[in-house]
Amino acid sequence: MTDTASRPLVTAFDWVPEFARGLVRDLRVRWALEEIGRAYDTELLSARSPRPEEYLARQPFDQVPAFRDGELNLFETGAILLYLGEQDERLLPARGQERWNAIAWLFSALNSVEPVLQRIVFYDIFHKDKPWAPDAREASLGLCRQKLKRVNDALGDKQWLAGQFSIADIAMITVLNIPRHTDLVAEQPALAEYHKRGTARPAYKRALDAQYADFTPEPA
Amino acid sequence: MTDTASRPLVTAFDWVPEFARGLVRDLRVRWALEEIGRAYDTELLSARSPRPEEYLARQPFDQVPAFRDGELNLFETGAILLYLGEQDERLLPARGQERWNAIAWLFSALNSVEPVLQRIVFYDIFHKDKPWAPDAREASLGLCRQKLKRVNDALGDKQWLAGQFSIADIAMITVLNIPRHTDLVAEQPALAEYHKRGTARPAYKRALDAQYADFTPEPA
Repeated sequence: MTDTASRPLVTAFDWVPEFARGLVRDLRVRWALEEIGRAYDTELLSARSPRPEEYLARQPFDQVPAFRDGELNLFETGAILLYLGEQDERLLPARGQERWNAIAWLFSALNSVEPVLQRIVFYDIFHKDKPWAPDAREASLGLCRQKLKRVNDALGDKQWLAGQFSIADIAMITVLNIPRHTDLVAEQPALAEYHKRGTARPAYKRALDAQYADFTPEPA
Repeated sequence: MTDTASRPLVTAFDWVPEFARGLVRDLRVRWALEEIGRAYDTELLSARSPRPEEYLARQPFDQVPAFRDGELNLFETGAILLYLGEQDERLLPARGQERWNAIAWLFSALNSVEPVLQRIVFYDIFHKDKPWAPDAREASLGLCRQKLKRVNDALGDKQWLAGQFSIADIAMITVLNIPRHTDLVAEQPALAEYHKRGTARPAYKRALDAQYADFTPEPA
């Protein structure tokens, strides 16, 4: 049995380069926990040295976050968000079409939108000096814009993706952070407003501050 | 209430080019339904002409599949698989660590593995004649191999990702179909065996045959 009064544990990095700050995925889990006012502990891993081999048993892709709640161990932010959502209706309606709308949009954020946005980061940041990167980027831009426009149009004048605020918004809004070095989100008016609305939530700000607070200073 | 005796409806394409046959995502939903012996109807859409505007209300990214079960409408294969899994323990354990392991691997397939494999298709198939494609492909290969090795190592000598066969395997095995024009899966022994094991299941074969059977002949 899960002891919901216990403090869950979230793994995070003790330092990441500037371009990754605010994008590391433990932010999603911290945000969900902040929305429901649930205190948590962090276990900080070094991003500058290899993680211990045993960590793969908790996170098979050697990434953060891994998550523990009582006896339960979990990885993948989508799964962790769903787990927290099932415990609290402020994060996910308990049943019916409303629940499934939120779950569908959760998967959309992670499978239909995030992958194309990650490509832009791959070209612009990880391979920015490569001669092939501008053309590869250009070839991916159309798909990025198309996906973002689809979300923009589905939002219309809705506040949140699935009626009430939910785990779908936590996933989508953090995904929309990914191309923050571009105007891709700003190009879509409803999406840009939605992103502003989400990142203005006090729980988001607390989560973001907490991620930054866990970073140690730059090595001298 | 959902009438589980009713026939669910899955949208699919009435034709796709050769390179996409067997990769269209309705396969995942058909496979899950075949595993539990549940009959379904298909609604075939044209991949060669624009879908009616109203289709976006059912599938905001204008893709297949959209899914309907009684009153419930759903999109994103991850969400549809989860929905079917919650109705039948042959697809997803009902509770506890076993349930969450399967859900974590479901998200892994769709968020940690599929996105990097899609890049290879993007370079090899959609942009195969572009001068920048070989270098962009080469830059992505390391990440592909790393993700596939992580799944390979997590599998070890296990039959399925999360104990019993589950929706996680339906997602991962169909994701592993994506680079079928390469040796990326064959390079990882446990993964290659796992992929063989999954695609040998009678329910997989019925689902694949059903997808192909719905394709009309090539236009003259």
